[in-house]
Amino acid sequence: MLVTTTIAAVRARREELARTGRRLALVPTMGALHEGHLALVRRGWELADEVWASVFVNPAQFGPAEDFASYPRDLDADRALLEREGATLLFAPSTKEIYPRPPATTLDLADLTAGLCGPHRPGHFRGVALVVAKLLNITRPHVAVFGAKDWQQAVVIRRLVEDLDMPVSVDVCPTVREQDGLARSSRNAYLSPEERRCAPVIVRALEAGARAFARGERGGHALEAILAGEVGTERSARLQYAAAVDPETLQPVDVAGRRVLLALAVHVGSTRLIDNFLVEER
Amino acid sequence: MLVTTTIAAVRARREELARTGRRLALVPTMGALHEGHLALVRRGWELADEVWASVFVNPAQFGPAEDFASYPRDLDADRALLEREGATLLFAPSTKEIYPRPPATTLDLADLTAGLCGPHRPGHFRGVALVVAKLLNITRPHVAVFGAKDWQQAVVIRRLVEDLDMPVSVDVCPTVREQDGLARSSRNAYLSPEERRCAPVIVRALEAGARAFARGERGGHALEAILAGEVGTERSARLQYAAAVDPETLQPVDVAGRRVLLALAVHVGSTRLIDNFLVEER
Repeated sequence: MLVTTTIAAVRARREELARTGRRLALVPTMGALHEGHLALVRRGWELADEVWASVFVNPAQFGPAEDFASYPRDLDADRALLEREGATLLFAPSTKEIYPRPPATTLDLADLTAGLCGPHRPGHFRGVALVVAKLLNITRPHVAVFGAKDWQQAVVIRRLVEDLDMPVSVDVCPTVREQDGLARSSRNAYLSPEERRCAPVIVRALEAGARAFARGERGGHALEAILAGEVGTERSARLQYAAAVDPETLQPVDVAGRRVLLALAVHVGSTRLIDNFLVEER
Repeated sequence: MLVTTTIAAVRARREELARTGRRLALVPTMGALHEGHLALVRRGWELADEVWASVFVNPAQFGPAEDFASYPRDLDADRALLEREGATLLFAPSTKEIYPRPPATTLDLADLTAGLCGPHRPGHFRGVALVVAKLLNITRPHVAVFGAKDWQQAVVIRRLVEDLDMPVSVDVCPTVREQDGLARSSRNAYLSPEERRCAPVIVRALEAGARAFARGERGGHALEAILAGEVGTERSARLQYAAAVDPETLQPVDVAGRRVLLALAVHVGSTRLIDNFLVEER
C-alpha cells in the first residue's frame, strides 16, 4: 500500500493506473476506522479492480463549537487496517495540502440540507461537498463508496455528482452495527461505559418506528412521535431531531408512501450520534 | 469533426482519447463564433494535441431580463468555422441534456463576484461556474481556453478549478479586436450602424486610462474617473461601471500597484458591452 500525503503523488499514481485501464474505487474517510469503514473497502473491491482510501479530518465540515480538535485520530492504526483489507493507496494529506489557502468557492445544496442535520450543523454540508469534490477530482475514481449511516451526506454527494456531471458513481453501503444494534461510528469512542449502555436507545427507537410502519402507520408526525417517545425513555439521551422524510428529496413526509427514511440525531451525554432506517413496504 | 449533442457520445470519445495519451484542449463557447473564439481554438492547438469546442447558450447564466432568448445562434456557421480551424469535436447539447432537472447545487464565489459585472448580473457567475464545472467534467480536458475580454469570468473559473482541485489548467487569451479597437463580441451583432460607430468609445476610454497609468496616475478613483469621463463624451453610450481593480482578487484598488485591471461595462443603445485592459509598469 502506497501511503502518501501529497496530491502530486496521488495524481502520478492515478496516471499510471489510467494506462492499465483498471477500475478504481475510493473510500473517503475521516480516519479512526472501524468495521463500518472496512465494509466500505470490501465493497470497493466488489466494484473495482483497485481500492484507495483517504483519511482527512476536514476542518471545513466542523462548526466552531464542534469536535474538530478532539476528533479521534490514529493514522498508524488506520494504515494497518487498510493494509489488511488490501487497499493499494492511502491518501492522508495535511490541512495545508487540501487548503493551501482559504477556498473562495462555496458549494451549497440548500434544498437537501434545510432539514435533518443541516440546521443543527450550519455549514457542515458545504464543507462536506467541497472536500468530497476535491477528493474526487484528486483521485478520479470510477466509484466512490459511502456509508448509509450518513444518509443525508450520501444524498448530498449523489446530487453534487449528478449536478456537476462528475464522472463517478456513488455507492452507498448498509450501516454496520454493534451486537446490540448501535451503529458503528468513530464518535462512539467518546462514550463513557454508562453512556455506551444507553446509546442503543437510538436503534430501539428506529426499530419502534419500523414496527409501526409495518403495522400500517403512515403519518409522518406519528412516526416521528414514536421515535421521539422511545428516545425519551432513556434519561441520558437527549433528542436533537426525529424525522420521517422522503429518502431521496429528504423532505418531511406528511403521509409516507411505500418508502420512508426514519432518522434520528441524539445526544448521549455530550456525544452527538445519528442513525437512520430506510423502511419500505414489502 | 465529430458533432454531437449527447454527453454519452462525448464521454465515449474521451475514453478513446485517453487510451492514446493525447492531450486535449477545450474551448467552451456560447456559439455565434467570431475571430475571438477562433483565436481560442488556435491557442488550443498550441497547448494540446486535439481541440474540442462546445457551443451551449447556458440559460443559468442569464438573468430574467437579459438576452437569453435573443442571443445569436447559428450552429451551422459555428460548425463550419470550427471545422476550418481543425477542431475534432463539437459538443452542442440541448438545455435538457445539460439540465435534465433543475440543479440542486449552487456554486458561489462571492468574494470574486461582489464587484464588476457581479452586482449588475445577479446569479450570472453562479450559472457560469456551474456550467463550466459540468463541461469540464464531461470533456475532461487537460487545458481549457477562455478569452480575456471576460476577465472576471476567467478569474472565477481559475479559482473554481483551484478550489475544487479539478485536473485542468486554465489558459486565458488576449482579447481580439476590430480594426477600430472594439473588442470582438457576439453581442456586437446587436448594434445598429450608428451604435457600432459609437461603440469604440469603450476602448478609447481604456486607452485613456492606460495613458494616465503610464504617466504615473495610480489613484483608483482617478483612473475610474478618466474611464467614465471618456465614456461620457459619447452621447449614446451609458456607463454601467468603470473600475480599477486588482487583476487577481478583483478588489478595487485605492492606490494601484505595478498592475491594475481597468474594466468597463457600457450600454450602447440597449446593448451591454464589456471590455478591459490589464495595464502594468514596464
